[in-house]
Amino acid sequence: MTTSPNTQIQPLSFAFDESTGQVSIGGVPLPELIKRHGTPLYIMDEETLRQMMQSYKSAFERYPAPVQVLFAAKANLTMGLCALIQQEGLGIDVVSGGEYYTALKSNFPTENLVFNGNNKTVDELELVIHHGIGLISVDNFHELTLIHQIAQQTGKRVDVVLRITPGIECHTHDYIKTGLLDSKFGFDLSRLSQVIDLITTDYNETIRLTGLHAHIGSQIFEIKPYVDLIEVMLNLFYNIREHYGLTLTHMNIGGGLGIAYQSQDDPPNVSDYANQVIDKLIDYAEKIDFPLPMLILEPGRSLVATAGTTLYRVGSTKVIPEINKTYVAVDGGMGDNIRPALYGAVYTALIANKYNEPHTRHVTLAGKYCESGDILIRDLLVPESIAPGDLVLVFGTGAYNYTMSSNYNRVPRPAMVLVNDGQSQVLIQRETYDDIIARDLIPESFLTQKVSAEN
Amino acid sequence: MTTSPNTQIQPLSFAFDESTGQVSIGGVPLPELIKRHGTPLYIMDEETLRQMMQSYKSAFERYPAPVQVLFAAKANLTMGLCALIQQEGLGIDVVSGGEYYTALKSNFPTENLVFNGNNKTVDELELVIHHGIGLISVDNFHELTLIHQIAQQTGKRVDVVLRITPGIECHTHDYIKTGLLDSKFGFDLSRLSQVIDLITTDYNETIRLTGLHAHIGSQIFEIKPYVDLIEVMLNLFYNIREHYGLTLTHMNIGGGLGIAYQSQDDPPNVSDYANQVIDKLIDYAEKIDFPLPMLILEPGRSLVATAGTTLYRVGSTKVIPEINKTYVAVDGGMGDNIRPALYGAVYTALIANKYNEPHTRHVTLAGKYCESGDILIRDLLVPESIAPGDLVLVFGTGAYNYTMSSNYNRVPRPAMVLVNDGQSQVLIQRETYDDIIARDLIPESFLTQKVSAEN
Repeated sequence: MTTSPNTQIQPLSFAFDESTGQVSIGGVPLPELIKRHGTPLYIMDEETLRQMMQSYKSAFERYPAPVQVLFAAKANLTMGLCALIQQEGLGIDVVSGGEYYTALKSNFPTENLVFNGNNKTVDELELVIHHGIGLISVDNFHELTLIHQIAQQTGKRVDVVLRITPGIECHTHDYIKTGLLDSKFGFDLSRLSQVIDLITTDYNETIRLTGLHAHIGSQIFEIKPYVDLIEVMLNLFYNIREHYGLTLTHMNIGGGLGIAYQSQDDPPNVSDYANQVIDKLIDYAEKIDFPLPMLILEPGRSLVATAGTTLYRVGSTKVIPEINKTYVAVDGGMGDNIRPALYGAVYTALIANKYNEPHTRHVTLAGKYCESGDILIRDLLVPESIAPGDLVLVFGTGAYNYTMSSNYNRVPRPAMVLVNDGQSQVLIQRETYDDIIARDLIPESFLTQKVSAEN
Repeated sequence: MTTSPNTQIQPLSFAFDESTGQVSIGGVPLPELIKRHGTPLYIMDEETLRQMMQSYKSAFERYPAPVQVLFAAKANLTMGLCALIQQEGLGIDVVSGGEYYTALKSNFPTENLVFNGNNKTVDELELVIHHGIGLISVDNFHELTLIHQIAQQTGKRVDVVLRITPGIECHTHDYIKTGLLDSKFGFDLSRLSQVIDLITTDYNETIRLTGLHAHIGSQIFEIKPYVDLIEVMLNLFYNIREHYGLTLTHMNIGGGLGIAYQSQDDPPNVSDYANQVIDKLIDYAEKIDFPLPMLILEPGRSLVATAGTTLYRVGSTKVIPEINKTYVAVDGGMGDNIRPALYGAVYTALIANKYNEPHTRHVTLAGKYCESGDILIRDLLVPESIAPGDLVLVFGTGAYNYTMSSNYNRVPRPAMVLVNDGQSQVLIQRETYDDIIARDLIPESFLTQKVSAEN
């Protein structure tokens, strides 16, 4: 008999086989995954990834104008994921030359790439304009000038949207609507006419303004801010048509939809989100008599977080009887998942090789990095028999774990594999010690001095 | 005329030449450094590095027993730095196989390496025991057993000290003396007799216990906790001799001495620290009639932080008149310096190419990473004329900047150079976009599917 996953938190293919006592993901039992790839290991479940991408696509299908779903690469990007995203018909929101280059080298169609970011460098803009880009989301005046100059040199005209700060910002359960202007990103609304003037006059030959872009936050649990955002943006579209005779066609409402990291988390589902967004767009556009724009979405975390789990092996444990506390240390930590230390992020985990044993013992799950703050989960329930060699599976690590990973303590970064149907395929090869020292150089002067000291 | 540095915060060789209007470090004007190496750039001042290492060595010279100063590699480690550390006669405190491997490949004498960490893996322990290690600081029972097994297999006897939690912990200005037991590191004092029993009986042929090790915190501004620690440790030494007839010879009091990140910071200087530590050791050892142990120190940050500066170039700026706020964005950020986001760390900076202009304008120094939290300095004074292309020099970045750096947003990590006497030598080569994708693989199944889709 096989136990099905809690699909809010666990990947769809997570399963426990009572006959073998094995937990598997993508049909691959964990010991087999370890035999092939070692620990710590980032495991991406292909079924969950495809299902989430398809759910976004299908949820927005009934919208009468075009819809472009862009995966926000900063959540997790590899060349293999680019190929998968392409198969599923999504575009990619890239925020750097490195992300763009990854997509380019994966033969990702450049017209389905959008370039975001608050401080794009000249090199980055040259790279994307030279090789082609669907849209650039222009953040500021300096960038606008750079785009103009590069486009002029290359004889191209670049399609852009303007990143704006709409006065709406959200953080999970906090929804601040009024007066939120304090952001490093985007044009303050008071500058909008100035920038449109510039584009439609001086930069008209090099830059085509197609729409607006806003991103109101991350790990958001409410739909209403998005609905409000649409009204704000459609009003801007309306005013721009009134003042400039310019009918914008692209509306990028960003990403930020939350996911469940713990069982008590209750994020909106994608179809509810889609329905409210679509209804608002149709209703409000009709009300102000504005043609429905193309809708652009930039989900990141909500597409990939739940697909990802991290598999660790337990090493040492430390019991402190005086304060009734137990530390259980795994072979990874803040180098492969900085989010608990950086954001106080809370993760869910279980002891996979003892899945059937009651998880009743409170422990603190620590990492192996030489820092007191390297704690992965402050209060985790594990079996009483927890011991070295046990396997810890941490859920919801598919977003912002690998992308923010470091070589702190010169620890090689884990491999990432894609699992499905009993197969595991490597998305990122595990780093070696030789990778760690590959870019180190010993200055000539030291080598000389050493030789002379030996003589 | 040349202006001398504020050596509390700036590297010793920092200089401003009024005749050329240029800031230089190590005798290399910054524009020349950029021409050679680009931005962002980690700059390590050789003069400051050597001076700090020598100041530790000389401050402890009068101690009548041996002293070993170990550089705590987690603060900053490259093969070039290993060579420099070796020249200065220091050892290295490594906390992982990767740090050990870096030292090994730099031909660093393994007997001057000490291996620390709360969850050393079997592979790591095999690596260091096989190739040789001065001391292992044993953290827990599981590790002790692993060392015993590996030593048995290789026919070696391993010198160890025991990492203990002495009930003293400090964070900068906070000094908590009593009852601090809650740490993932080391043996609780109540377990000490159990572990000594084990080593002196069952593990006697494979493990030689030479001393104790404690580390009481990081960025500490007081000397008294160290003095108190010495009393705690000498009392333990005394009791161990009483109970086991075992005279321990090695006392490792860890690192953690603070540095000045801002002008108002007032850390103790190394010679005051050394004098109080030495006096206490001599006095208290005499009082309890115990032979002076070898003193081991593990400074990290205090050796390298001030030697390091990061050079950035300004890109976009954003003025928000409604809230009277200006964001100035540079070409780096949380990828190369996570400390402001992770710890709320406060750094000092100046606009190097406008050094002579009064820095009177309050701005927020932001990074280029696609995240609202990517702010390097919340309130920085810059010249009124701040503009794209200006050079920002952030001080005190020699510790925990490079070692904690990530490829977030797939941004290549900066180069690190060592400067001195007009020369700049590369310690770490700048990453390229090809480095970023070097470990990415596209699963076979995707390539096949793509081909068939094209047919």
